[in-house]
Amino acid sequence: VSFVKQFVCTVCKTNYPSNYTGFTCPKCGEKGILDIEYDYRAMKSVVTKQYFKANSDYSMWRYLPLMSIDKRPETTLAVGWTPLYETKRLGSLWGISRLYVKDEGLNPTASLKDRASAVACAHAKAIGATTVACSSTGNAASSLAGSAARMGLASVIFVPKRAPAAKVTQLGVFGAKVIQVEGDYKAAFSLSKQAIAHYGWYNRNAAINPHLVEGKKTVALEIAEQLDWNVPDWCVVSVGDGCTIAGVYKGFYDLFELGITTKIPRLLGVQAEGCQPFVTAWDNNEAILETDENTIADSIAVGIPRNPNKAMKAVVQSNGEWIAVSDEAILAAIKTLGNTEGIFGEPAAAAAAAGCYEAIRRGVISPNDAVVVISTGSGLKDIDHAKQAVEEPIRLFPNLELLIDVLRKKDIQ
Amino acid sequence: VSFVKQFVCTVCKTNYPSNYTGFTCPKCGEKGILDIEYDYRAMKSVVTKQYFKANSDYSMWRYLPLMSIDKRPETTLAVGWTPLYETKRLGSLWGISRLYVKDEGLNPTASLKDRASAVACAHAKAIGATTVACSSTGNAASSLAGSAARMGLASVIFVPKRAPAAKVTQLGVFGAKVIQVEGDYKAAFSLSKQAIAHYGWYNRNAAINPHLVEGKKTVALEIAEQLDWNVPDWCVVSVGDGCTIAGVYKGFYDLFELGITTKIPRLLGVQAEGCQPFVTAWDNNEAILETDENTIADSIAVGIPRNPNKAMKAVVQSNGEWIAVSDEAILAAIKTLGNTEGIFGEPAAAAAAAGCYEAIRRGVISPNDAVVVISTGSGLKDIDHAKQAVEEPIRLFPNLELLIDVLRKKDIQ
Repeated sequence: VSFVKQFVCTVCKTNYPSNYTGFTCPKCGEKGILDIEYDYRAMKSVVTKQYFKANSDYSMWRYLPLMSIDKRPETTLAVGWTPLYETKRLGSLWGISRLYVKDEGLNPTASLKDRASAVACAHAKAIGATTVACSSTGNAASSLAGSAARMGLASVIFVPKRAPAAKVTQLGVFGAKVIQVEGDYKAAFSLSKQAIAHYGWYNRNAAINPHLVEGKKTVALEIAEQLDWNVPDWCVVSVGDGCTIAGVYKGFYDLFELGITTKIPRLLGVQAEGCQPFVTAWDNNEAILETDENTIADSIAVGIPRNPNKAMKAVVQSNGEWIAVSDEAILAAIKTLGNTEGIFGEPAAAAAAAGCYEAIRRGVISPNDAVVVISTGSGLKDIDHAKQAVEEPIRLFPNLELLIDVLRKKDIQ
Repeated sequence: VSFVKQFVCTVCKTNYPSNYTGFTCPKCGEKGILDIEYDYRAMKSVVTKQYFKANSDYSMWRYLPLMSIDKRPETTLAVGWTPLYETKRLGSLWGISRLYVKDEGLNPTASLKDRASAVACAHAKAIGATTVACSSTGNAASSLAGSAARMGLASVIFVPKRAPAAKVTQLGVFGAKVIQVEGDYKAAFSLSKQAIAHYGWYNRNAAINPHLVEGKKTVALEIAEQLDWNVPDWCVVSVGDGCTIAGVYKGFYDLFELGITTKIPRLLGVQAEGCQPFVTAWDNNEAILETDENTIADSIAVGIPRNPNKAMKAVVQSNGEWIAVSDEAILAAIKTLGNTEGIFGEPAAAAAAAGCYEAIRRGVISPNDAVVVISTGSGLKDIDHAKQAVEEPIRLFPNLELLIDVLRKKDIQ
């Protein structure tokens, strides 16, 4: 049984009943992204701290009663219940006493997007779809192809001409039909839209599908549970389209409404300086304008965010903040996370860490605040950029005296 | 409290007491690899099915009482408790009804080696070492560097000149001092040995350190527990040095000795045709001879296995088998695992799947046998080889009619 009460358009606020099958508001078109509202009073009778204590399913599906689909699919990848590391060494370096990192790179296809794609595929199966589709070259695509393969669905992924061969390869391994479109991302997106309409494939394009946020929110539910329901003062997350921060907010909101937690953490939305539409709009108190996409953090390089309202609402309602970080700061954060804690994040993941550090430096985050940084994806997906962050190896002939000499100069023993 | 009874030399069978601090048998030198024996009678009083039922630590450390170190380190990466997938689609394709894949690529640095490195670092900390070292370009190195960073240890990794830049980068992210030796792997290994002796660093070189197998065995303990202690008929694992299959055997052996399980699965050791010293020795009933290292499965490309006795014993004692597979079969298995189940393994991981398929084809594994294949590492570590396994994307101009036409010819709708 799902506790969905209704779907509400984030633009015109029109309500649609719980059995509504559309993805967006027909009045507002594609911008009419729907928010899913729950009957928390009914949900409360099932979802309690005790419910979780008795639940031995250590995956995102332990949160099924808080989701918009009825049934856990029979076969799934092992999405969720990723580690929340207490990172004392990093915290001490940054001068805060309670710092945690949630390593979402340990999801099956190595990013937080697995949570959304798992829900998409589960929903697709529930409504009888046999093919799922999206346009992306990144984590959304690989997570969709992976979950689809595991659940026995076909997948079709539209990528732009410039899509990196490595990412196309990952899609191919998962058996996705990859359509490489002569043109840019917009051309790929546009063709995907037409094809999805023509064939009736299940649509996993970002933002449009309201169930995706309901999958993503499980990361917040886990953070809260892993901290024994004592939610942090701040939760830091990097932002591209805005869907992930919207999901994080939704998860914390659900728990607060259920009375399981006593507050909603302040959300720090982090963007790259070279692509910061949210930060600019926030700083200037103006509407979100299209920007360039100049950053190494490809997973958050989104010049026109597709989920602006939900993302802005997440920061405003949580009394949060927006911050931008340079690519240099992102590279430094990749190295610092790896060096001090053994966590290897992709640039977009390290952006959140860099934003946390910058917020501490500016006094936005206080030394006594409890902070969770979400590391959204694995660094193994982008070795090339990480290379810019690290020292060259020590090269020498195989001779112990030579080695001792070199190490002495570097003060290693 | 650890239940170690004694250390026994795998060559000359000399016993050493439980407080012995050396790694190898002084009489036999480096070939005198030690096996750790436990006092199962004492262990039985603690380690029961009930013990695990009450244990909420879902990581490799839930098996601490079966290990050779006393204490779980304070900070660790989230190693272990990786998913054991029931793979019905793959099983049906291969004609067996009970097939499972253990995805070790979901460990923190993306391979099974994390289990050994976590124990190495824990042991290093316990005996007061501050620097850990090994020579490797592969999963042993990245797992050591990652666990060392997390536990606050320094790490020094020796790599040969030809070490791929991507792998060196991963080590750098984890803050390892990387020594790139002008020469081949043997030169790197030899310099590492001299340097470890000179500086007194903690030695994580394969086989030599008897505690590593005790970490690796946790994969078998997990498989058994995840199957509710009904161990499979076969467990399939790819073999290079021989340490991993030795660990798998040790884990199943422990449980059998404790009376928690009723049998030890037959172990199928899989090698690549281009580097199959164990298979050749087995087929010809002769000693293990040095071979070439001609295979894409770099993680098992070991021409002189360093742990031959323990590995051979594992197969003999379990009534197991050895099998070799071609690189073509390995590439095909990468694709099949990905397509049917959404699991992306590196070549050495897919080798086990390919070996399983070959054993079914030959009738070594029967259709009614329950089989677990261990996928030892993530395919994200070796995208280049995976590329050879997958179809080219469909390239076209952004036009729906064109797309429909192409897809019709491929019978997609």
